[in-house]
Amino acid sequence: MAKNITPRQKDYSQWYVDVVREAKLADHSPVKGCMVIRPNGYAIWEKMQQALDNMFKETGHVNAYFPLFIPQSFLEKEAEHVEGFALECALVTHSGLERVEGEAKLRPTGKLEEPLVVRPTSETIIWAMYKNWIQSYRDLPLLINQWANIVRWEMRTRLFLRTTEFLWQEGHTAHATAEEAEDETQKMLGVYRTFAEDYMAMPVIPGLKSEGQKFPGAVHTYCIEAMMQDKKALQAGTSHYLGQNFAKAFDVTFQNERNELEYVYATSWGVSTRLIGALVMTHGDDNGVIIPPKLATWPVYAVPIFKKPEEKAAVMNVLEPLLADLKKAGIGSRLDDRDQLTPGFKFAEGELQGYPLRLEIGPKDIAKQQVVLTKRPNREKMFVPLGNVVDEIPRVLESIQKDLFNKAKAFRDEHTAPVETYDELRQAMEEDSGFVLCHWAGNQEDEERVQSETKATLRVIPMDGHREEGKCILTGKPSSQRVIFGKAY
Amino acid sequence: MAKNITPRQKDYSQWYVDVVREAKLADHSPVKGCMVIRPNGYAIWEKMQQALDNMFKETGHVNAYFPLFIPQSFLEKEAEHVEGFALECALVTHSGLERVEGEAKLRPTGKLEEPLVVRPTSETIIWAMYKNWIQSYRDLPLLINQWANIVRWEMRTRLFLRTTEFLWQEGHTAHATAEEAEDETQKMLGVYRTFAEDYMAMPVIPGLKSEGQKFPGAVHTYCIEAMMQDKKALQAGTSHYLGQNFAKAFDVTFQNERNELEYVYATSWGVSTRLIGALVMTHGDDNGVIIPPKLATWPVYAVPIFKKPEEKAAVMNVLEPLLADLKKAGIGSRLDDRDQLTPGFKFAEGELQGYPLRLEIGPKDIAKQQVVLTKRPNREKMFVPLGNVVDEIPRVLESIQKDLFNKAKAFRDEHTAPVETYDELRQAMEEDSGFVLCHWAGNQEDEERVQSETKATLRVIPMDGHREEGKCILTGKPSSQRVIFGKAY
Repeated sequence: MAKNITPRQKDYSQWYVDVVREAKLADHSPVKGCMVIRPNGYAIWEKMQQALDNMFKETGHVNAYFPLFIPQSFLEKEAEHVEGFALECALVTHSGLERVEGEAKLRPTGKLEEPLVVRPTSETIIWAMYKNWIQSYRDLPLLINQWANIVRWEMRTRLFLRTTEFLWQEGHTAHATAEEAEDETQKMLGVYRTFAEDYMAMPVIPGLKSEGQKFPGAVHTYCIEAMMQDKKALQAGTSHYLGQNFAKAFDVTFQNERNELEYVYATSWGVSTRLIGALVMTHGDDNGVIIPPKLATWPVYAVPIFKKPEEKAAVMNVLEPLLADLKKAGIGSRLDDRDQLTPGFKFAEGELQGYPLRLEIGPKDIAKQQVVLTKRPNREKMFVPLGNVVDEIPRVLESIQKDLFNKAKAFRDEHTAPVETYDELRQAMEEDSGFVLCHWAGNQEDEERVQSETKATLRVIPMDGHREEGKCILTGKPSSQRVIFGKAY
Repeated sequence: MAKNITPRQKDYSQWYVDVVREAKLADHSPVKGCMVIRPNGYAIWEKMQQALDNMFKETGHVNAYFPLFIPQSFLEKEAEHVEGFALECALVTHSGLERVEGEAKLRPTGKLEEPLVVRPTSETIIWAMYKNWIQSYRDLPLLINQWANIVRWEMRTRLFLRTTEFLWQEGHTAHATAEEAEDETQKMLGVYRTFAEDYMAMPVIPGLKSEGQKFPGAVHTYCIEAMMQDKKALQAGTSHYLGQNFAKAFDVTFQNERNELEYVYATSWGVSTRLIGALVMTHGDDNGVIIPPKLATWPVYAVPIFKKPEEKAAVMNVLEPLLADLKKAGIGSRLDDRDQLTPGFKFAEGELQGYPLRLEIGPKDIAKQQVVLTKRPNREKMFVPLGNVVDEIPRVLESIQKDLFNKAKAFRDEHTAPVETYDELRQAMEEDSGFVLCHWAGNQEDEERVQSETKATLRVIPMDGHREEGKCILTGKPSSQRVIFGKAY
């Protein structure tokens, strides 16, 4: 167990805070609710961006950039939308600071005629532009994504999971038919699922949100829902079918193939730096973070073992060309050849920061023409002949990636159980036993009752499986499928 | 000449506006001073980011992310810094909107104790964090870069060149010695020069800014200065040696190797989406934009020539595998196989949007087993046998890249001339003849006089060449090198 890290069993919440700080992923800033993403954390985000961006482009999307500021009146055009975000809006009201005779502090000047909202999401400003760009069905579909920072004023914040400012991508697409927009919504949910499972090694349940949990302004919202190691749910990505709501709010019509004017159909979808928190909480252990190989900028942490300078020189003579060969094979490594620190110290730091694979080599290994590889998750050791290292490492990384996914999936499945009555649900939440699968036909008010009585929320109405006739555990009304309730981040 | 585009000779300023709009690079937004970067423009920015980011990483830098908001009091800690930015600061003063009985519009609520400045640059918030991260010389150097959006309230804006919000990167490094920080400042200027010349094909003059033109808070500022086709100067990148100014403002000290406490030395450096404007103004012509091959996401614009559907099918049978082969060779292409449009229309659109190379193929070409390649800049045509296309295109793209640079350099050199007297400078500015090289030993007040009398500013004190004894054209004081004056964006 790493020093300065509270064990998960003792206090999971504190463990998370400790790991994020000690692994130097992020830091609190002097600005309330805003975080600093440190280089180790940002390197994960960069890999996430690359993978997602490639998938967006392969599915026909292009990137663009829209303004940070949104006129207050724009936000007010879609009724549900503004209600959903009004209390979280940072407002720009002045455009300068001036010095006033006799006052120590500068004073705001240049009062704006209308306050500007720092974007909490960009539907309104983007649809105001789409109005100019869309006239005919020939201009559709419009498949645009934006990488941007977002501000939603938060009272209680947690690094990565809930912060006033965060980074994300938001896709905003425009379509000629409802069907095409619905297909897009589901396609992008599929992209998110693939990303979560294949890159983050984090199993997720794709499905619909209930009315009470959908995006303000959406017709319906899909999500992928994951289970963290404390058995709480984390919403990892959402994809919204917006119907014609924003097209109507901003009067965006197009001439269809039958020469009729029609409102445009819309989708939006997003994932954020919250995923870094999800990654930490899915795979981390009491020794620190574990980064899945596919999201590691440096999958290999290389530690030369030496006591005297001559030994170091001899080891580096072998290690440096080896790392160069790895680089040529597309495998990044971080070399820790610092002099004053012991191998034990470096091993602990490497585990803390979550490099998936450690590579050690010392004089004895050179004598045997081998290196020692150690898998981060289970500390499994392998002695690999020097000549095989470049071929072997990709295989080892692949097995680490797969093992991480399987372990997380087994954990989730183990902590997901059907319940048949409201009492059973209540008991499951009291015992923190994880997700429950139950029949549900309640309305938004019923959901709120469940939440206030048990702290559980309806996480997701799964798209795959769980179809069967039954009765709602609260209202007794007929239900045709089970849904997932759980406590959530 | 493309329709809807004013010729450069007639009105260069209007030509720029027309080209940016018609090529769909950017658009004005409903938020005063803020632009929308459209997919065609953003694709250029993505290529710029990739190239720069690689160079930053190769020189040992890592990326991180710091908050968008800066407490007003932080900005006030460095006296010159706050004076430089005070009048351009967007201020967040409230954290929400609330509905008030009887009022149609929502009203700002949650007044903040202290206004937050939307970052106009990040030295202050970053040095507030560095204070926590730096204790010893072992923590140095700290070589961090950030990709971010920036807000500086502007009254008169021009797409890409001067907007209230823009995108940029800002490097912020911390060092144990003044010498090391100075080296870093010059190294990053070198990176910018390489990027401008090798990727943008835009020749630049690296050198120092004068006291009056340096960054607020810097000890001195280096820049790269380019000439646009209207012979005006454009500052394309800056690199600042900050000395201990920000370390003192935020009390950032470190224990040096002799166990003494010392203030940390700093640099910062940045380039922005302004470079997209520079690219357009360096290479564009009356037909539209010209993107240098190294910054083109799609260096090849592929146009199949056909009249009947059978012809299209036959042409696509040859073209599609060819484009797939190009993709395998790392060369992106955009296929324009739209049915209702004539080849002539497509050629014009391809020129407008600036794809460096057009590839056409029709039934007659297939009969001859060839394609037609046309270089965007000079419309030079080449007939290339089908079997050679994949080998030939990289060579053609390289020649286009080189020709663009040489042409821009010849233009600049042709419009740069020595002047020996203030009258000659004045006359050169009246005639809009370009850059002048002259001896200078004036102070800030003298510079302001030159500007108010001639509209010229001291653009750069070149690092390379131009060392010789002479006398200042304004003050007659001795000078040991010539500097560059010109009108500027």
